[in-house]
Amino acid sequence: MPHSLFDNHRALLDQAQTAIACRTHWSPYAENPRSYGEMALEDGLTAFEAYRNAQFYLDQPGLTGRCGGEISPYGLPLNVSYPRCSPEGLIAAAKSAMLPWVRAGIETRTGVCLEILARLNAGSAEMAYALMHTTGQSLGLAFLTGGPRAQARGLEALAWAYRAMTQVPAQAAWQRNISQRLEKRYMVAPLGVSLVIGCATQPTWNAYPALFASLSTGNPVIVKPHPTAVLPLALTVAVARQVLKESGFDPNLVTLLVGDPDDTPVLRDIARRPDIRLIDYAGAPDMGAWLRDNARQARLFIETGGVNCVLIDSSYDYKALLKNLVLSLCLDSGQLRTTPRVIFVSREGIETPDGMVDPQQFGRDLALALGKFVEEPARAAEVLGAIQSPATLARIAAVSELAETTAEILRHSSPIDHPQWPAARMHTPLLVGVDAAQRDFYMEERFGPIAVVVSTANAAESLALAEATMRDKGALNFLVHATRPHVQQFAEDVAVRAGVLLSLNLTGAALVNQPAGFSDFHASGANPAASCSMIDAAFVANRFYFSQVQQHYLPPSSIDWLVDP
Amino acid sequence: MPHSLFDNHRALLDQAQTAIACRTHWSPYAENPRSYGEMALEDGLTAFEAYRNAQFYLDQPGLTGRCGGEISPYGLPLNVSYPRCSPEGLIAAAKSAMLPWVRAGIETRTGVCLEILARLNAGSAEMAYALMHTTGQSLGLAFLTGGPRAQARGLEALAWAYRAMTQVPAQAAWQRNISQRLEKRYMVAPLGVSLVIGCATQPTWNAYPALFASLSTGNPVIVKPHPTAVLPLALTVAVARQVLKESGFDPNLVTLLVGDPDDTPVLRDIARRPDIRLIDYAGAPDMGAWLRDNARQARLFIETGGVNCVLIDSSYDYKALLKNLVLSLCLDSGQLRTTPRVIFVSREGIETPDGMVDPQQFGRDLALALGKFVEEPARAAEVLGAIQSPATLARIAAVSELAETTAEILRHSSPIDHPQWPAARMHTPLLVGVDAAQRDFYMEERFGPIAVVVSTANAAESLALAEATMRDKGALNFLVHATRPHVQQFAEDVAVRAGVLLSLNLTGAALVNQPAGFSDFHASGANPAASCSMIDAAFVANRFYFSQVQQHYLPPSSIDWLVDP
Repeated sequence: MPHSLFDNHRALLDQAQTAIACRTHWSPYAENPRSYGEMALEDGLTAFEAYRNAQFYLDQPGLTGRCGGEISPYGLPLNVSYPRCSPEGLIAAAKSAMLPWVRAGIETRTGVCLEILARLNAGSAEMAYALMHTTGQSLGLAFLTGGPRAQARGLEALAWAYRAMTQVPAQAAWQRNISQRLEKRYMVAPLGVSLVIGCATQPTWNAYPALFASLSTGNPVIVKPHPTAVLPLALTVAVARQVLKESGFDPNLVTLLVGDPDDTPVLRDIARRPDIRLIDYAGAPDMGAWLRDNARQARLFIETGGVNCVLIDSSYDYKALLKNLVLSLCLDSGQLRTTPRVIFVSREGIETPDGMVDPQQFGRDLALALGKFVEEPARAAEVLGAIQSPATLARIAAVSELAETTAEILRHSSPIDHPQWPAARMHTPLLVGVDAAQRDFYMEERFGPIAVVVSTANAAESLALAEATMRDKGALNFLVHATRPHVQQFAEDVAVRAGVLLSLNLTGAALVNQPAGFSDFHASGANPAASCSMIDAAFVANRFYFSQVQQHYLPPSSIDWLVDP
Repeated sequence: MPHSLFDNHRALLDQAQTAIACRTHWSPYAENPRSYGEMALEDGLTAFEAYRNAQFYLDQPGLTGRCGGEISPYGLPLNVSYPRCSPEGLIAAAKSAMLPWVRAGIETRTGVCLEILARLNAGSAEMAYALMHTTGQSLGLAFLTGGPRAQARGLEALAWAYRAMTQVPAQAAWQRNISQRLEKRYMVAPLGVSLVIGCATQPTWNAYPALFASLSTGNPVIVKPHPTAVLPLALTVAVARQVLKESGFDPNLVTLLVGDPDDTPVLRDIARRPDIRLIDYAGAPDMGAWLRDNARQARLFIETGGVNCVLIDSSYDYKALLKNLVLSLCLDSGQLRTTPRVIFVSREGIETPDGMVDPQQFGRDLALALGKFVEEPARAAEVLGAIQSPATLARIAAVSELAETTAEILRHSSPIDHPQWPAARMHTPLLVGVDAAQRDFYMEERFGPIAVVVSTANAAESLALAEATMRDKGALNFLVHATRPHVQQFAEDVAVRAGVLLSLNLTGAALVNQPAGFSDFHASGANPAASCSMIDAAFVANRFYFSQVQQHYLPPSSIDWLVDP
């Protein structure tokens, strides 16, 4: 008998299943804050303020103290303290909680997960403030990507998981002949305990697919947020635990693990424990590599980003190209793993309706368009947001210094003021021009508002360098502006060999760094940027197996000693 | 337009897709040699003899010499020499062959793979002799498991792969609003080059799922057979190359890599190369562990086996239980990864219709039934086959010696004669009785005809020890004889936690070590016996990703600098 929560949300699940199969546009959760009530944002702010200067309540086992020291990139100290629990305590509680959750079955688990999403959705406004003041995103972007779009990603994972889990029947009557009749039962069984490691810049958007894929397939989940962005995932865990408890399950199926500001030791400790069988991680490449080299008992779902390339060969509308590119470079101050990093332009020039544009001219045009965009403070603040980490500022400074002497600075990065938050950490994007030979400038991801224009001999060299960069250093996407069919065809070959999503001739508000839920595949697993694709069958099917019980149901017949009579 | 080979085999594919969804009994390929013609086995023998004392023809790149030195466990030297090719030559050829194979699309690739299976099926009789004289299996078993049932496993993998590849449409029109309209195309793209490492005892049955899952999803495959069992996979590769060539594809999509009798260096060399992105391995745990620790650039599908446990609590028919268990222990001389290794019996006794049976009595009864079974030479030869490796004989000797002084030998292993092959390496199974405290005897896989009866205090201790053994050392299956419902329920919990297939009360010819294609899941990936389950969605979906190309198809509209208008 399906669980009432499954019945309540079944229509949404059906729509989600249709959406992953059709891959047309679908937004399951309203994306406009006003849809959540006239006062939604005000109420969200009040709720957010109530968490500040207080102890965050979570009734978890293995308590050893409290910690937490988040400071908003907008300058606001949050002063929230979280319960610190031992990894062994959380793992033991997770294991104890597992079996009833598994036995509850696919529909009940899915129903409970859908209810968690519904509650998270209702809390989107307070989540927006939590995200804004931990990641630095503008309020608008924090609401959108951290709320409804993150929830949509969770729902997408649930739809894929439900499809994968229901591919096999609950039972089968198997009979080869009179002496070989078996009654078989199949049940979705989890791999073990799942560890979801949150990132600093998109904590909910990145964690929700993992959280819901693991939980719905029967795995208890330990959520380990980034120390600078605990609150969004603490809110998430609190909601999940509440719903689990109300539904009669052990809330320790979802727990929060927090550590010191430098929590690398905690992470390295838990990641290698034999009971941790699934690890999802989004973040810096060094920890990704460490996990790959060390957490070999677990299946890894790692996204570390890479060097997303842009190739500009020719364009129907050069101005629209520039505007689209500037928006992509500015969005969230380049702090998305999908942000374009390197732009290849051939010295043979860009073919446009108004004539050829050489790389120097392109650099000037892009710098100008960028300048025009950031000169309007309110608009700039809304799109750029604040810079999450001081390390990003240091990176901008280092690249600037290097470029001063060995390359061309097309546009300097400079601090700008936020209209409301005087202490906000805000800088305009840095734009550097280099030659194809200066590989140090572009064969490495430089996370943040830093973009490099590379001038090449011709389109073939651009294609070859883009392929080499993306294959060796990883990439999530490849943006190409080309009107010539053979360049488009070559670009497709490059995209297949490099394992990147290819976007052709994007203009308007269609941004290469805003993957669309239920339609776009994020990462491929075929280059170093990620070890998996999100969200596809492998992303969910790797988290469970079909447990099988079979029983001989004949009165035992005499056996004639033949293997297969 | 679907390829003609796809049309030819579409009905079979449809049936296979139904079979994986229903999981009732289905044998796609005839299992009786006579179905292949009155003279099929005779013709197969002639074909097999033609390979002996000759050079095996394969027109592969990177040729550096020839090698090969297989000797049949029945005493016959094969004297077949194979072309030795360099790993870099095979990898380069594989990469060059890839893109047209990818672009050919799902239906064409699947059609070609189905044709390869049809040709392999037609050659089942010669394959039976090739398998018999490399693995030591009896002719009957070699025909069955190495021919039709191995092919069925290949077909099962194709059915899962086809289902996974067709979950996403070829294209979608995506529109959020007037300024964001994208035309999207999706294509199945491979991870890279796939390395399939064959095993010594079931070279085709173990390799076919990997070969067909990888190839149909677009990956070129390099097949590396075990040095003692090259011929079955060389025949397979030759057939695949022939069909690829006839279909207009580069035959280097499937190649054979052979090395010296000790080919560990070749294997370790190729397994770590960056272009190798998928590795399938079935065999000894040490190489499995080495791959896990070293081939970290690849996705691994490893099956190394473990300690399959049996728990005997109570029985409806004690005699039938004994007969079934003896048959399982004898089948292929315990050289299946699914063979039961350890039998737990409580000192409280086995409840049977004829009264309680204590562990001592059970040991005597099992030894007696085993003796009765092996005393009939023709039947024994057919079920036991020959012992593939001299290392297995050494293992029998070592356990016997240890047991002489510290345990009870319930039945000695002794050489027996084969009716036709006087030089055949044949030994009866060794049966040892120990106490629960003697963990060294059972907490380790002892591959071959060696079984251990462990006496425990009670059923609870049996369950706990079985769980600990299977969780720590890995296992594929758990055979339980229990009439008491609570013992069955506990056994189910153990099976879920340990990640093993649970079989209850098997008698007759339903053997725990003969997994049924299209119905049983082989391994779970949830314990050390294997890193994956075969065959499920994860097994195929991990081999490809959805490559995506999207294009803005509006005349670029003006952009109002909003992220999401």
